[in-house]
Amino acid sequence: MNDHAPGAAAPITVVGLGSMGQAVAAAFLDGGHPTTVWNRTAAKADALAARGAVLVHSPAEAVRAGGLVVVCVLDRKAARDILEPVEEQLAGRGLLMLTSLSPEEARETARWATERNIAFLGGAVMATPDLIGNREEASVLYAGSREVFQEHRSALELLGSATYLGESAARASLLETALLASMYSMFAGFYHGAALVGTEGVTAEEFTALAVPWLKAMTTFLPGQAEFIDRGDYTTDEQSLEFNKGGLDHIIHISRSRGIGNDVMRPIAELIDRQIAKGHGADSVARLIEGIKHPEG
Amino acid sequence: MNDHAPGAAAPITVVGLGSMGQAVAAAFLDGGHPTTVWNRTAAKADALAARGAVLVHSPAEAVRAGGLVVVCVLDRKAARDILEPVEEQLAGRGLLMLTSLSPEEARETARWATERNIAFLGGAVMATPDLIGNREEASVLYAGSREVFQEHRSALELLGSATYLGESAARASLLETALLASMYSMFAGFYHGAALVGTEGVTAEEFTALAVPWLKAMTTFLPGQAEFIDRGDYTTDEQSLEFNKGGLDHIIHISRSRGIGNDVMRPIAELIDRQIAKGHGADSVARLIEGIKHPEG
Repeated sequence: MNDHAPGAAAPITVVGLGSMGQAVAAAFLDGGHPTTVWNRTAAKADALAARGAVLVHSPAEAVRAGGLVVVCVLDRKAARDILEPVEEQLAGRGLLMLTSLSPEEARETARWATERNIAFLGGAVMATPDLIGNREEASVLYAGSREVFQEHRSALELLGSATYLGESAARASLLETALLASMYSMFAGFYHGAALVGTEGVTAEEFTALAVPWLKAMTTFLPGQAEFIDRGDYTTDEQSLEFNKGGLDHIIHISRSRGIGNDVMRPIAELIDRQIAKGHGADSVARLIEGIKHPEG
Repeated sequence: MNDHAPGAAAPITVVGLGSMGQAVAAAFLDGGHPTTVWNRTAAKADALAARGAVLVHSPAEAVRAGGLVVVCVLDRKAARDILEPVEEQLAGRGLLMLTSLSPEEARETARWATERNIAFLGGAVMATPDLIGNREEASVLYAGSREVFQEHRSALELLGSATYLGESAARASLLETALLASMYSMFAGFYHGAALVGTEGVTAEEFTALAVPWLKAMTTFLPGQAEFIDRGDYTTDEQSLEFNKGGLDHIIHISRSRGIGNDVMRPIAELIDRQIAKGHGADSVARLIEGIKHPEG
């Protein structure tokens, strides 16, 4: 794969120039990489061409330009339509797909690539296009070919902070899904809190001023929770399920008495109750994850 | 209330020396305040007395010691049992209750105090006792008498960052309840994410290393959400309910396909669906709060 002069920035090809593809190509250009671009609608390449990108007119030419091939299209179908006709040209090269894939699609794509001697790396971009290039705000998760990740690491770090999750290609999109899940649940709890304080005339803005530092501070408890989860032993002297059941019941009672729905809070109380009913009331509240892991249990 | 020499640290009395009361009294002592303490079991005052606290032997003596009276007992019943017999001595003084009260209990206590010419301030301690005195980590919310808060502000800031929420005494405990609700929901989302990545052999520790910076970064979206909520107008060009419905459905589908329970995620999807069903699909995802505010709507 290493077909560029030692020390020089490696050539990179970006296929697909939607808003994410344009941002990605621009970051590589800004980092000094010879960048070749292709898009079905060539006009989307105009701004990049003006900044020095080489515009080619077919996926085959794009792949032949050499170096890492980065695909930024909408979904797997769009990616397949572009890549399958040029699979012979891709053989022996590195392929990074920043396309949204489910974990299973990522696994299948990795298998397809391996069978064709293509080194596949899946990437999940945890940022909007306008944040690409901002190492503080943009994070990209990679899984698949360690060789591709290591060879192109400095280029990948031009996009945002780069984390390699291992050879299992499904991991990047699964981590993305898990991070989005945790975000939605944090937002839902914020909405519940804002609705609750609103019953006393406190604005969401006032609540946010307290909730943002509070939630950030509470993340410091997550590493300790993770230890319980990874050990699978939830024995503790503090923050027991019983103790937290009291807290949840209080929240639910106060919310109900003020006419606020408990859609977000009740399932958490029920997950706690389920573990207590199994006789684990003295264990860490982290044990409620067992009810998520084993929904029938 | 201002019965101490100008410039000198005001005298403070702490009633109730459980672990929180001891930490609070120690912070006042460390800040140079003449500190009087009382506890039903006097032995709990030994360490404080050795550091300069004056131990008295009845609540009446404690109140007569002058300055602000801070009550740190378990609940309203314990507080009443101590305060009602000394209500005459409390008249004309400032009373801060750091005891856990529901919003309604805080409101009733404020009414009781006002009728007796006692200036009542309710406080909600957003910290464990070991963090008291750490302005970065401990936050105390106050509501009730503005006069008491302002007069004793420098003393209160010895406990942790001090936020005054207004004259409505219910606000401190309601805010506390709302912040705890948002914390539990953030934790629940973290558990969901950790359970999901666990299906691919990713440890909770590995997940936490990504989730902590991710969740902190995502709090930057909360002020924008608060603006929609306070305006009550959710018109937007981005982050619509329809867009986020796709995200939630994807999380739920991937989780189910891996045998993970959707107890935490499904209610969020349902709150989104309810707003879309009302014809608001193009509005901001923040509109889902309307289904929490109006559970019957």
